[in-house]
Amino acid sequence: MRGRSPKSVVGTSVLTWVSLVVVLGGCAAPVDDASITIPAIDSINDPLPSWNEGPAKQALVEFLLRVTLTGSPDFVPESERIAVFDNDGTLWSEQPLYFQGLFAFDRIRMMAPAHPEWREEHPYSAVLSNDPEQLSALKEEDFLEILAVTHSGMTVQEFRQLVRGWLASARHPRFDVPYTDVVYQPMLELLGYLRERGFQTFIVSGGGIEFMRVFSEDVYGIPADQVVGSSGETEFEIRDGEPVIVRHPGMHFLNDKAGKPVGINRFIGKRPILAFGNSDGDQQMLQYAAGGDGARFMGLVHHDDAEREWAYDRESHLGRLDMALDEAKERGWTVVSMKSDWNRIYPFED
Amino acid sequence: MRGRSPKSVVGTSVLTWVSLVVVLGGCAAPVDDASITIPAIDSINDPLPSWNEGPAKQALVEFLLRVTLTGSPDFVPESERIAVFDNDGTLWSEQPLYFQGLFAFDRIRMMAPAHPEWREEHPYSAVLSNDPEQLSALKEEDFLEILAVTHSGMTVQEFRQLVRGWLASARHPRFDVPYTDVVYQPMLELLGYLRERGFQTFIVSGGGIEFMRVFSEDVYGIPADQVVGSSGETEFEIRDGEPVIVRHPGMHFLNDKAGKPVGINRFIGKRPILAFGNSDGDQQMLQYAAGGDGARFMGLVHHDDAEREWAYDRESHLGRLDMALDEAKERGWTVVSMKSDWNRIYPFED
Repeated sequence: MRGRSPKSVVGTSVLTWVSLVVVLGGCAAPVDDASITIPAIDSINDPLPSWNEGPAKQALVEFLLRVTLTGSPDFVPESERIAVFDNDGTLWSEQPLYFQGLFAFDRIRMMAPAHPEWREEHPYSAVLSNDPEQLSALKEEDFLEILAVTHSGMTVQEFRQLVRGWLASARHPRFDVPYTDVVYQPMLELLGYLRERGFQTFIVSGGGIEFMRVFSEDVYGIPADQVVGSSGETEFEIRDGEPVIVRHPGMHFLNDKAGKPVGINRFIGKRPILAFGNSDGDQQMLQYAAGGDGARFMGLVHHDDAEREWAYDRESHLGRLDMALDEAKERGWTVVSMKSDWNRIYPFED
Repeated sequence: MRGRSPKSVVGTSVLTWVSLVVVLGGCAAPVDDASITIPAIDSINDPLPSWNEGPAKQALVEFLLRVTLTGSPDFVPESERIAVFDNDGTLWSEQPLYFQGLFAFDRIRMMAPAHPEWREEHPYSAVLSNDPEQLSALKEEDFLEILAVTHSGMTVQEFRQLVRGWLASARHPRFDVPYTDVVYQPMLELLGYLRERGFQTFIVSGGGIEFMRVFSEDVYGIPADQVVGSSGETEFEIRDGEPVIVRHPGMHFLNDKAGKPVGINRFIGKRPILAFGNSDGDQQMLQYAAGGDGARFMGLVHHDDAEREWAYDRESHLGRLDMALDEAKERGWTVVSMKSDWNRIYPFED
């Protein structure tokens, strides 16, 4: 049981399943180390236009050039250029609730006509009532039950169709756009720039691996085999002559907190040199990335922009950023302020 | 528990953790379908020189051209060109025992001075005696115990060092070369040719994922994140200030038989269009690959060359090929005869 990181299961909301390369505008800033010099790059060619000039962008640019410029003492060969990104709250928003949770709620509503007993039965009644008070009273075991009911009992292919259909029709309650539009433009730019510099960009999220794979390639340019996430139990079956993978209730692996380094080691097999998260669920992933030799980049997205996105950190029930924020300050990890470091949050903004 | 494929654990030796694009020599052979024509390619440029002309090589070439030639009705985009290979008996030999088993035995011998009680204690005494009769009487639970003792209780990094050291010093008992030389030259050519044609080549083996990753990149050109295998329980820990992954006793996932399609879905997230194995442990993987739409290639390496390699199939305790061989014949999967289809087995041959 140890590898399933029981510590992170107990006392954690299950919905806890749920960066940055810059070009300095036209100035040649010497790196602290003084051994390499960052070349001046025209701001017209800035690969990170949604990042404001400032310490976060500068730290990213410096790191990226340090590890990719030939001759740099910190040069890292391409095979070791592994970057990992949390998803919820790091690549896309996670409010008013993890989007996968909203998918599960919508599934409950769609399945309800076949389950008239749900109107009186907890926790389904809470979802069907759509009453904020009842919803906020849901406990971990309630979410587990909702997940089991909505995410299993079908083949992987059928599940993908359900997610695909939902993503095509559901709209984010605040912005009235598809959920896959509620992604961070600065992070899309960073992912692209990292790949341009020879990095492999992995998602390492507490979210469901199958859920994310439905859109990761189209939205982030990240193929299915570079998505690491939580997974339920699955089984191979020949069903009506067709060989299929069937989804069963029950967790196989929870890729959150101390589970993230375990998932990274299991799926990627190498220690990342860049890691980006936004909550305490990412703390161990950042610790793991920080632990290797050579140059490292650890980043946290700080949700401090209530106007354009949301503002929450130490006191939040969802996406809490508390201990990781302390460690970031202590160890000099880069904390990205959405408010001051990003001049644009979403692609749909003008 | 379902996703851990208990069926494949019970009644199976645990040591059960343990192709082909051809260019037709100078002739333009029309594909059955008649919609595309295989271009003539000079035999000097044959990317598969260790494959004899014959039905296996021809089936491989035809498949590869069908799915990669622009305009072919069976054309498959690069993102879907997923090829999976078993390792033991498919990419390298598995006699006289799975090489990882031999590593475990050598570890027992190296650890023995610190465990004087092992001289009298089963199953260690069998390994230390090196008596073929005692060794062949070892049961599944014995192997499990040997694996637990030799493969856990250290960090992942320490384990890699142990494997690396063993691979650098141990010699295969029959050929007196390093184990990593006892690989099939025709399969190395196939892996390279597949990648040249835009395929991703994954290992999907019952062998230990961490064990294989130590040499997969150097020997097969397959990076760590494209290795799928069995894994033990692991845990994230800060040890003396260093963030590490620690290996614990106990199986996390057995990637064999019905576990292989589960592992493929979990790690790769796409259905392969080419699958190669050599034993009944690969049958479900081949069934799974065969199940998708469009052109598919399923291959089995048949060990029928006692002189240059080994000859074994239906009656073998190790690498048994029985039910999968029947299914291959029934469904027209390609069975590769080592004896007649390969003009060279190992790279070290003249």
